[in-house]
Amino acid sequence: MADTKVYRASTTAPVNIAVVKYWGKRDAKLNLPTNSSLSVTLSQSDLRTLTTASCSALFPASEGDSLLLNGAPSDVSGARTQACFRELRARRAALEGADPALPKLSTLPLRLVSENNFPTAAGLASSAAGFAAFVRAIADLYELPASPSELSLIARQGSGSACRSLFGGYVAWRMGAREDGGDSMADQVAEASHWPEMRALILVASAAKKGVSSTSGMQQTVATSGLFKERIATVVPANMAAMEKAIAERDFEVFGEVTMRDSNSFHATCADTYPPIFYMNDVSRAAIRAVEAINAAAGRTVAAYTFDAGPNAVIYYLEKDAEAVVGTFYHALGGVGGWKTGAVEGLKQLVALEDGVRGLLQAGVSRAIMTGVGEGPIKTDEYLVAEDGSPAKR
Amino acid sequence: MADTKVYRASTTAPVNIAVVKYWGKRDAKLNLPTNSSLSVTLSQSDLRTLTTASCSALFPASEGDSLLLNGAPSDVSGARTQACFRELRARRAALEGADPALPKLSTLPLRLVSENNFPTAAGLASSAAGFAAFVRAIADLYELPASPSELSLIARQGSGSACRSLFGGYVAWRMGAREDGGDSMADQVAEASHWPEMRALILVASAAKKGVSSTSGMQQTVATSGLFKERIATVVPANMAAMEKAIAERDFEVFGEVTMRDSNSFHATCADTYPPIFYMNDVSRAAIRAVEAINAAAGRTVAAYTFDAGPNAVIYYLEKDAEAVVGTFYHALGGVGGWKTGAVEGLKQLVALEDGVRGLLQAGVSRAIMTGVGEGPIKTDEYLVAEDGSPAKR
Repeated sequence: MADTKVYRASTTAPVNIAVVKYWGKRDAKLNLPTNSSLSVTLSQSDLRTLTTASCSALFPASEGDSLLLNGAPSDVSGARTQACFRELRARRAALEGADPALPKLSTLPLRLVSENNFPTAAGLASSAAGFAAFVRAIADLYELPASPSELSLIARQGSGSACRSLFGGYVAWRMGAREDGGDSMADQVAEASHWPEMRALILVASAAKKGVSSTSGMQQTVATSGLFKERIATVVPANMAAMEKAIAERDFEVFGEVTMRDSNSFHATCADTYPPIFYMNDVSRAAIRAVEAINAAAGRTVAAYTFDAGPNAVIYYLEKDAEAVVGTFYHALGGVGGWKTGAVEGLKQLVALEDGVRGLLQAGVSRAIMTGVGEGPIKTDEYLVAEDGSPAKR
Repeated sequence: MADTKVYRASTTAPVNIAVVKYWGKRDAKLNLPTNSSLSVTLSQSDLRTLTTASCSALFPASEGDSLLLNGAPSDVSGARTQACFRELRARRAALEGADPALPKLSTLPLRLVSENNFPTAAGLASSAAGFAAFVRAIADLYELPASPSELSLIARQGSGSACRSLFGGYVAWRMGAREDGGDSMADQVAEASHWPEMRALILVASAAKKGVSSTSGMQQTVATSGLFKERIATVVPANMAAMEKAIAERDFEVFGEVTMRDSNSFHATCADTYPPIFYMNDVSRAAIRAVEAINAAAGRTVAAYTFDAGPNAVIYYLEKDAEAVVGTFYHALGGVGGWKTGAVEGLKQLVALEDGVRGLLQAGVSRAIMTGVGEGPIKTDEYLVAEDGSPAKR
């Protein structure tokens, strides 16, 4: 009799925010980077993507593979998404070839449903969590024996930084040397439990969306910036080495300085692109001045800013310095939503930010997100596809 | 009988705005730069410093040398100002030694009075015009046979970019190789008459004054930017060569692109400084987007932006493209003062700037200055010191 079962697997995957930035591809088709990068995986209790992968002979082949993202059908015909489907199916097909008893899932249409627990509009790196969950969920559905590093090779082809979201804690993406990208994958520098006190305060800037997409932006930088080659030849390798040592030694002073310097270096090469790319705005710069004021008042580096391809500030700090960092921003931005009431109540501020800085932040920050270092993808029995194969009622 | 004459000489000197930027000293004491630079001298009918140098046995030696700048006594005890006095006196003393008939002006106190015809608050490079006029006026008072290039050696020690204001037109400051700086001087790449159609529109940003002085800022960049050495080793030499060729061939397309790229490169190294230096703000970036929109609408490079150590935009263009450039900004910024009524009346706009860009410009630009390429220092019989040695009534 025909197999009418709906096979399902669900996973959650985290956002990661790089402290040594990925910017520049040496191979755009394979998503091979011009340099290695390193990130902190953020807690999924605050920011995560939940994805259910399902397949069934009941799904009409005519519909092909499909993805419902935050309730809306999402195009899966893009080369990068197709590459992920292809790689995962090939691995499943190999298993099926080796063990005829296995159901032929590789031949069935895939139905994926995915939801973020944070507004995509926030301009956070949702594609990283999205592709990591996408790959992990299908790998679980197919019961692939692949390690996270092997899966990171696949996720990388969907979205470069996604390869880092297959691990928790502190994660490096090694650029690799092979032309086919076979050695361009992520590995875990340290477990979250190695340095669990790491926290991140995200100041979401109420800015219009990006003018330039990251993909086209980074290739313009590679092609036109006269300073970029120095960044990848000298600056990043030094930052990677210093950052791995700082994490191994739990040295926040070094971790913080390298984080800030690498963010500055990345945005400098964007500004040196022709035509110039500006992701930071006056609100972003006010956040930098605020962090500098906090560190000056503390007499040491207790806060470290970093900015991705957008104006949001991500500020790393250690739990013990919450009052200096969160307290100061909370007092300047109390009116803004997103603070964890229990965590900020009673916090004093270390320093009163100067009016110009506070004014820019109050006018330009729409939301605060308090989070910290967290775990990698987690298998869950919460399904976004019902047993009958229909998208679950929410 | 004693010589009671008041010896006087007056000169005006221009502002210059670099198209290949000076940023970084290899010797802070001698003001020796890490790279060559190139600028356009702007017309003194719009922006100039008028300086009268005088000396007399009537001036009490106890008062020593003095400078009245824009009506206020200005400190002349700084090492840089003292270096200029010393160099000029030494040359006068040599003349006096060779010709005993000459009055011993080198032994007399100097009284200088200087006035700008533009608000210093505008954040324009007033120190360049100021030191150029200072040196030229004293050289004239002393009747030194020194060439402009020789005087540029002296002015350079007062303010690096001042050495370029001793010439009109298109001026290069050659970094030189000698340790004593004897070959770090300016020369004229082309007379203003070689390419007289060059115009500049300056958008004065209503910003607070600079947070970081250029002098300390550039040394922080040299010390901390990982990208800076690539700028001086590769980027600037290529820009200097391309710019001299573009000027020789009156090729605005190349002149404009190199101008914009070099400004971007300079500000990129500022952003890569630790802690980062930001001279441009959202208003500056809006001016860049406006220039890009104008060039896109024109289908060629008709406008080129450049930014010094502040948020003001200087936009170079050719007279024939005044409607495309000035017309567009005038229609977006009509309410702002400083436009040359005769020159803007009847100008249409080439393109309507998008609301976001226009809004930032309207909120952030306080004044427009319309000028163009101009001549070097000009001897004048307008004196700011009366025949009796007192500051002239204005």
